[in-house]
Amino acid sequence: MDKQNIAVLGAGSWGTALAIVLADNLHQVNLWTHTKAQADQINATHKNEKYLPGIDIPEEITAYSDLEKAIDTAEMIVFAVPAKATREVAEQVNKIRHTPALVVHVSKGIEPDTHLRISEILQDTLSADAMSDLVVLSGPSHAEEVVKRHPTTVTAASENMKAAEKVQDAFMNQHFRVYTNHDVTGVEVGGALKNIIALAAGITDGLGYGDNAKAALITRGLAEIARLGTKLGANPLTFSGLTGVGDLIVTCTSVHSRNWRAGNMLGKGHKLDDVLEQMGMVVEGVRTTKAAYQLAEKHQVTMPITTALYKVLFEDVHPKEAVDQLMTRVKTHEMEELVNILENQNE
Amino acid sequence: MDKQNIAVLGAGSWGTALAIVLADNLHQVNLWTHTKAQADQINATHKNEKYLPGIDIPEEITAYSDLEKAIDTAEMIVFAVPAKATREVAEQVNKIRHTPALVVHVSKGIEPDTHLRISEILQDTLSADAMSDLVVLSGPSHAEEVVKRHPTTVTAASENMKAAEKVQDAFMNQHFRVYTNHDVTGVEVGGALKNIIALAAGITDGLGYGDNAKAALITRGLAEIARLGTKLGANPLTFSGLTGVGDLIVTCTSVHSRNWRAGNMLGKGHKLDDVLEQMGMVVEGVRTTKAAYQLAEKHQVTMPITTALYKVLFEDVHPKEAVDQLMTRVKTHEMEELVNILENQNE
Repeated sequence: MDKQNIAVLGAGSWGTALAIVLADNLHQVNLWTHTKAQADQINATHKNEKYLPGIDIPEEITAYSDLEKAIDTAEMIVFAVPAKATREVAEQVNKIRHTPALVVHVSKGIEPDTHLRISEILQDTLSADAMSDLVVLSGPSHAEEVVKRHPTTVTAASENMKAAEKVQDAFMNQHFRVYTNHDVTGVEVGGALKNIIALAAGITDGLGYGDNAKAALITRGLAEIARLGTKLGANPLTFSGLTGVGDLIVTCTSVHSRNWRAGNMLGKGHKLDDVLEQMGMVVEGVRTTKAAYQLAEKHQVTMPITTALYKVLFEDVHPKEAVDQLMTRVKTHEMEELVNILENQNE
Repeated sequence: MDKQNIAVLGAGSWGTALAIVLADNLHQVNLWTHTKAQADQINATHKNEKYLPGIDIPEEITAYSDLEKAIDTAEMIVFAVPAKATREVAEQVNKIRHTPALVVHVSKGIEPDTHLRISEILQDTLSADAMSDLVVLSGPSHAEEVVKRHPTTVTAASENMKAAEKVQDAFMNQHFRVYTNHDVTGVEVGGALKNIIALAAGITDGLGYGDNAKAALITRGLAEIARLGTKLGANPLTFSGLTGVGDLIVTCTSVHSRNWRAGNMLGKGHKLDDVLEQMGMVVEGVRTTKAAYQLAEKHQVTMPITTALYKVLFEDVHPKEAVDQLMTRVKTHEMEELVNILENQNE
């Protein structure tokens, strides 16, 4: 494996964890954060106390708050900023960078109103002079476990398989397994929409409804994600893979997931504004619920969980009322819900 | 809903919980157990302290240790005995019963060596004079939550949809939702084989490998269950439903699952014999691993997790060695594993 110069944009927990994976693989890593104080702290202490407390950051990683310095000589640029900030950071990169880099993104979300996936935002913003190819890296992966070198398995998806393989080569090691996949749409839709189901799972847990209810919710959540995804051009099999069911499970069953935590507080009776204030972090599932609700309306796809959650978040419906309505829907033949996935595909 | 006389065979936690659901729906329920002491205790105290401590058993439920009395006038007979005991109990029922009853089973397992599913064992054993139709009831459902009237969703599958609907009518209420499905093979294979993956998930947890590894394991476990299932004639979509991914999630992520608990002890270094002795309960996944391993060989289906677990259980391979081998398998294109499911279907 060749040693490369790789820039990771965003020094949250996931960006920092991926920088550590790359440093483990002996690459030269530039880690960009928009605050100078955080860059200085990382360079001085080799820790990221806010996002990954207690974890040593290898000396091969240099932090920058100057974007130009961070990406100047990078062969690969990894976008690990929140979905919401992707467009703004990409616009800055596009101004600075004039030789095409291999671009990777690891963010999960869909832009409300425009309904663009992250890769579409990047393609929209980065010219061919700045970006040669685009790869999405996604899968079931708590940053806290990756930095402990616990076994983790993710997917690198690209329309250009050679580009996906380059990303696979750069990240793959004994603890961090990378599979390739062609289906960018499926990987991005699964990654984004699982946050909706995680919010809903948090709500049912907050209401005290138990594992049986949560398992039913996750199962039907996966079906509605697949329904919308295939309508948008994804391969339905992708939703049975790491970025579909795998990521959905890890996000819905872990108390570390911030979307689950936000849902849990909603289920316990807190109001959305209070929850977001108390979290003090981005809860991507809230924006994604809005985007998915709009997409479901536009494409006339039935998404009962997304719709119920939309009403809780934006129309002040009580969580218990919304969940009880979900549980007593009239359909009684299981295949009606599932077969739909393949029917969509044939339209 | 007509009031019916229904016999539930087996007074473990699941049989007792289902008897309570039926009593909530105002049916007359006979609950059979093979020990007279347990029957007497249930009738005297209206509790089943061994399997559902603290839960009130409605007076509409009468316990019997005499099988003939329990099933004599029953219109519906529900088999809720351990998979291992199904054949023996069915043989007794066949001797006693001479008017056809609607038979339901709720057990999960595959017989080693014969490779018969539970419905096949029942069809093998019960004559047309004893059984009119056969329905399997399965899904993500901890008994402990069902008796607390927490929302639960399960599937009733039968080749005869009218029979499945009768079972749906008898069990369905506000807390316990029943969906119908045609695919008996898929429902039974999913229910049985998830215990293999739960054992393996317990092992990875016992080794301290974390949620990322477990999510990858569950995802790939679901793929190998679907591969074998479709080879045996199941509809691949069934594995995306309640009895597939739903039941798999609840079993792999709950510390209440005895298969997960057994795996967890194996992962922590205990030997199989000690684990089984300490559990003092049936660990169905051990038998099912043997049966599935044999089926995979017979039908030449790749089942890496089942094979690894078989080696741990029966060939004394160390759990860490087996899991590490799984994590470092050579395949790197995700679709290779998934596409296989549909390829099998077309053979």
